[in-house]
Amino acid sequence: MSSPMFEKIALIGLGLIGSSLGHAIKRAGLASHISGHARSAETRDAALKIGFIDSAHESAQEACENADLIMLCVPLGAYGAVAQEIASSLKPGAILTDVGSVKVAAIRDIKPHLPDGVHLIPGHPIAGTEQSGPHAGFVELFDQRWCILTPEEDADKQAVQKLSDFWQACGSDVEIMSAEHHDLVLAITSHVPHLIAYNIVGTAADLEEVTRSEVIKFSAGGFRDFTRIAASDPTMWRDVFLSNKDAVLEMLGRFNEDLSALQRAIRWDDGDALFDLFTRTRKIRRGVIEAGQDDAEPDFGRSHAAKPDD
Amino acid sequence: MSSPMFEKIALIGLGLIGSSLGHAIKRAGLASHISGHARSAETRDAALKIGFIDSAHESAQEACENADLIMLCVPLGAYGAVAQEIASSLKPGAILTDVGSVKVAAIRDIKPHLPDGVHLIPGHPIAGTEQSGPHAGFVELFDQRWCILTPEEDADKQAVQKLSDFWQACGSDVEIMSAEHHDLVLAITSHVPHLIAYNIVGTAADLEEVTRSEVIKFSAGGFRDFTRIAASDPTMWRDVFLSNKDAVLEMLGRFNEDLSALQRAIRWDDGDALFDLFTRTRKIRRGVIEAGQDDAEPDFGRSHAAKPDD
Repeated sequence: MSSPMFEKIALIGLGLIGSSLGHAIKRAGLASHISGHARSAETRDAALKIGFIDSAHESAQEACENADLIMLCVPLGAYGAVAQEIASSLKPGAILTDVGSVKVAAIRDIKPHLPDGVHLIPGHPIAGTEQSGPHAGFVELFDQRWCILTPEEDADKQAVQKLSDFWQACGSDVEIMSAEHHDLVLAITSHVPHLIAYNIVGTAADLEEVTRSEVIKFSAGGFRDFTRIAASDPTMWRDVFLSNKDAVLEMLGRFNEDLSALQRAIRWDDGDALFDLFTRTRKIRRGVIEAGQDDAEPDFGRSHAAKPDD
Repeated sequence: MSSPMFEKIALIGLGLIGSSLGHAIKRAGLASHISGHARSAETRDAALKIGFIDSAHESAQEACENADLIMLCVPLGAYGAVAQEIASSLKPGAILTDVGSVKVAAIRDIKPHLPDGVHLIPGHPIAGTEQSGPHAGFVELFDQRWCILTPEEDADKQAVQKLSDFWQACGSDVEIMSAEHHDLVLAITSHVPHLIAYNIVGTAADLEEVTRSEVIKFSAGGFRDFTRIAASDPTMWRDVFLSNKDAVLEMLGRFNEDLSALQRAIRWDDGDALFDLFTRTRKIRRGVIEAGQDDAEPDFGRSHAAKPDD
């Protein structure tokens, strides 16, 4: 049997992404040992019981001892403190990566703490669901999804290649770009969509003419899809918006300009402007399906005979 | 065998909703004969071939002759012209209903054309997918979804009851409310969500720093869910926004106010405000699932091992 890609991998954070990584690492046999750290004893116990880590550690520092690959799977707001804590136990030649949704801030918060000889290669798998915690993970989460790596220009090429191989072995396709560009791309493809989903659900919840029970009852008209997105982890998303402030505000500005134009078209009965936009957006949907990034089944393939207690 | 609820039902418009109705009527045996009209010969042929209507008619007027229940399943913008065309063939005691997403405008456009003795009872099944045309329909579309009826105060009670029974036999739960209230409820649960989905997809498509291929490639971060909604029928949705202008602009105004507050919270690092909202919205999601209006499976139960050509 050939030896695994890494002797020891440390997962710092055992939520949706950490647990899915544990499963994917085990499926592909990429480590002899997976150590795991979570702040909550309940989470650590669950992780051991589910079996996606081999050892659980109350201290992040201890989990990282002797690890060849360390993966930060905690909310962005915790990066600075965690990096500071683990720095002294990182061995030369180790690769430190993360899975966070903002990359400029990740480098800013982690890099100052690192000892020489440790390779910081930030990463971001474009995959997830609205669920959280160690039970939410599953082995196929990264299959045929993209993982973006954002190494700095002077990053060690071999280490970048190794992390790229790792993600491919976890089922992903890998793309390399700058941290700045990543943050712009994600602002429009993920951060602003989440923000407006949270916002519309909040607006609906606050209405008095329309009751909350009506909003829920008649949600199948489109609203329910927004509620799914707006059920994502609050801590993670708070940190995303605070960490990618500039790009989010920039993209939000464009969104608002376009929405004002649309609002004006409605007010002035400009049906052609509406029809043109609605036809253009249909094409983008076809592109998403052709690129294998979504199923073509209508309504996400929802079962239309679903029981209320499904 | 007991006789069916209606001798003859006429479906005017044979797209997603018209075809699904044909299937549901046949499943429950609610009519001895279903006549159908569509402007396009191709659609009429498809409908006959699929078999969800018994006779196809080039003229809407002809399709309505002798019908006991007439269901308008065409875009809202066509209501006035269709009502005018069919008026002379409507028999006294017949029920005329529709399935459109805006009810005040439906009454405004249809009512002036109707002969005495015809019961206008507007309706709106809160069900649909992003797909269109006679092949898009399926028999379970209305199962366990709500159908809202908006009869005027002086509407015939027996006729309202009969239409309510009809929708229940098609699998739906029925709610009765005023046309004005319906239009407010749908503005927030359906129309504004569709508008902002169309808008974000349009904004993304126009970016130059981020290419269209990147927007598509990395859409799994949230954007792809908006592309699905923004793939809905352009004609139908143009008509919805023009027909429900006041309520949509009102709700959009509230959405914008809330979004400005959120934008401000991001700019001023107010993490608590973000966290509070994101926690509140999670509860609404739970309500939607408990009410049986969506599946609880993560990510809409998408297959995570989907092949690009699935």
